[in-house]
Amino acid sequence: MRSSHTIHRHHHHFGWDNANTPALVIAPGDTVEFETVDSSGAQLNPGSGLDDLARLDFGKVNPVTGPIHVDGAEPGDALKVTIHAFQPSGWGWTANIPGFGLLADQFQEPALHIWKYDPSSLAPAVYGPGGRVPLKPFAGTIGLAPAEPGLHSIVPPRACGGNMDVRDLAAGTELYLPVQVKGALFSIGDTHAAQGDGEVCGTAIESPMSVVLSFELVKGANLGMPRFTTPGPVSRHLDGEGYEVTTGIGPDLMQAARAAVSGMIDLLSGRFGMKPVEAYMLCSVCADLRISEIVDVPNWVVSLYFPRIVLR
Amino acid sequence: MRSSHTIHRHHHHFGWDNANTPALVIAPGDTVEFETVDSSGAQLNPGSGLDDLARLDFGKVNPVTGPIHVDGAEPGDALKVTIHAFQPSGWGWTANIPGFGLLADQFQEPALHIWKYDPSSLAPAVYGPGGRVPLKPFAGTIGLAPAEPGLHSIVPPRACGGNMDVRDLAAGTELYLPVQVKGALFSIGDTHAAQGDGEVCGTAIESPMSVVLSFELVKGANLGMPRFTTPGPVSRHLDGEGYEVTTGIGPDLMQAARAAVSGMIDLLSGRFGMKPVEAYMLCSVCADLRISEIVDVPNWVVSLYFPRIVLR
Repeated sequence: MRSSHTIHRHHHHFGWDNANTPALVIAPGDTVEFETVDSSGAQLNPGSGLDDLARLDFGKVNPVTGPIHVDGAEPGDALKVTIHAFQPSGWGWTANIPGFGLLADQFQEPALHIWKYDPSSLAPAVYGPGGRVPLKPFAGTIGLAPAEPGLHSIVPPRACGGNMDVRDLAAGTELYLPVQVKGALFSIGDTHAAQGDGEVCGTAIESPMSVVLSFELVKGANLGMPRFTTPGPVSRHLDGEGYEVTTGIGPDLMQAARAAVSGMIDLLSGRFGMKPVEAYMLCSVCADLRISEIVDVPNWVVSLYFPRIVLR
Repeated sequence: MRSSHTIHRHHHHFGWDNANTPALVIAPGDTVEFETVDSSGAQLNPGSGLDDLARLDFGKVNPVTGPIHVDGAEPGDALKVTIHAFQPSGWGWTANIPGFGLLADQFQEPALHIWKYDPSSLAPAVYGPGGRVPLKPFAGTIGLAPAEPGLHSIVPPRACGGNMDVRDLAAGTELYLPVQVKGALFSIGDTHAAQGDGEVCGTAIESPMSVVLSFELVKGANLGMPRFTTPGPVSRHLDGEGYEVTTGIGPDLMQAARAAVSGMIDLLSGRFGMKPVEAYMLCSVCADLRISEIVDVPNWVVSLYFPRIVLR
């Protein structure tokens, strides 16, 4: 796939604002390569330690490259984004950032793990405390400017996409985003080398990379929320040895999810001697939160699926 | 696997009560075959129609076969249940039961689909309105008597298991259940020929079958919630052609799940001409609810993964 345009990494912005000046105007059918900065905004690097994490300026996190204006896009259309390829950098980071993450109340101390991986083979990445994590690059933040004027935080995802952290927005996937403003104003960033469903500690394998995408318009799609189509299986890089699964059962899905993750941390730290925070970060990069049942009133079941291949 | 005991289907009970008389006393290591009744309590059969669904006596739904007393089991232990094999019956039913299900407010009319499938080949089952659903038999209700005295509804699952509807409690899986009473008092029922994660319309392919299990004790396990280990992949019967995925994004996981399911019903009924209730029931038997992210405050992403192989 040959790109007709490249958006360099200095064309990034913080937060969403439909008044941002487009970095590029394209026509439907065009293919564009985006260079992304990692979600620390290049404040962390392969030599970083806990001191650098402590000094993180949160005003500069999660930059996104863009925006691009798509000719003819209007509110009510869908922007179809075909995700062609990722060119990963070979390094990444995972952190427990105090105040952030599903179990923030239990994990109040900062922790940082720096990853190195082979960007061409994408062989499973070694986790120092134990394990090898299969990789599947994707973009955590991929979305459009919202209709509402002003500057909006990059952190929460919205109906027009954004920081969705859907780990299957990987190469080959076709994503449909609801257009809310003229020109759509598409941006992308927060690339990850691997992540489990849920991203439970709040970070994945955060890793800068380049991404090649093409764009088409579906006029008058009137889509309420983003949707996507995967070209094939989504978990075969993880599932070969089966899963260890912990459950949370109760009347609140959030508390059930927390119980399932706590159960897995207990299991991993008890069996493999990891520190609890190491197990928590490992779950964030490879274990999947699933809703097993949501109808047996008043108690629901949320399960955390940890791929056994990681610790074989 | 040769069973040393068989518990016939007339040994069933309604609800959980630790005062129930055991149908059998076994020793750890024993293997037992259980005959189960379907979750209608045999009120529905392969010839049933909407009239039979309307006459359903809810006092007789979801019978479980048992209980069995496991010698030496005490509160604080875990009962390890190895799920060896299912002998399916070849028929099943899926219903939209008014007042029950994730979108009960939107689907207020009863609907019933009767399935026939080959119990030996377990080839994908034909869905009249469109599609072929891959099968993977499992037990929806599998659990132990709770410590609290009295009769407890069978509908909600609890810390000691029960109506968990975890679709991966299939052949080969090892399940660990927290023991709350002397003897554990294990029962099983509500067998399903197929179900998606979530069981969104409230029923799966409800199908009577026999199940072969063996039991061991893990003394002093002090397990908080059920957990299990799968021997291999869990979705390969579904994932070969990839997935159509709809999302729900917002500050409440329940509402996000509802939005994801509504989005898929719109997609399936729009593309394949199914009635919305037919699409809803089809999602319940084959589509998976996943929590894509649960950390990007204040908005979470729940996704519904519909396997494209079903409609190819």
